[in-house]
Amino acid sequence: MTPLQIELIGMFAAVLTTSAFIPQVYKIWKTKISDGVSLSMYLSMLIGVVSWCVYGYLIGSPSVLIANIVAGLLQIMIIYFKLKFK
Amino acid sequence: MTPLQIELIGMFAAVLTTSAFIPQVYKIWKTKISDGVSLSMYLSMLIGVVSWCVYGYLIGSPSVLIANIVAGLLQIMIIYFKLKFK
Repeated sequence: MTPLQIELIGMFAAVLTTSAFIPQVYKIWKTKISDGVSLSMYLSMLIGVVSWCVYGYLIGSPSVLIANIVAGLLQIMIIYFKLKFK
Repeated sequence: MTPLQIELIGMFAAVLTTSAFIPQVYKIWKTKISDGVSLSMYLSMLIGVVSWCVYGYLIGSPSVLIANIVAGLLQIMIIYFKLKFK
């Protein structure tokens, strides 16, 4: 496989795993209720996602880097809503 | 950085993002309630995680491969509980 084909698989994976967070963001924004969301879970995920960004940069993987930048932004939104609506 | 040091960052990231699913699995197993969990979300995440495994294998990244195998197993457990307790 060519590097481009490999990155297409990575980007396909990235879209599926990252978009899974969007309904959660939308639900909290719409209902203003974040009871089902654990702050400590999202904070540890955020540290994990930042580490994935560093790792993706170091191994030169665009898919890992971009997927985790987007996931990190969505998690920051969830944490912001969690603190705002508590 | 050496490849080993880079993989240590990847493994650190993997532990943080993968372990975030454990409370969800535990909660559904304990309460036998899975109302807060969307089946379609977990199914699309599972397809994403399988794609990440293929990608991790193709780029030769142990961290991406192992993280997504573990995440995939946890998601299969959530989907199983979801179907069993609905």
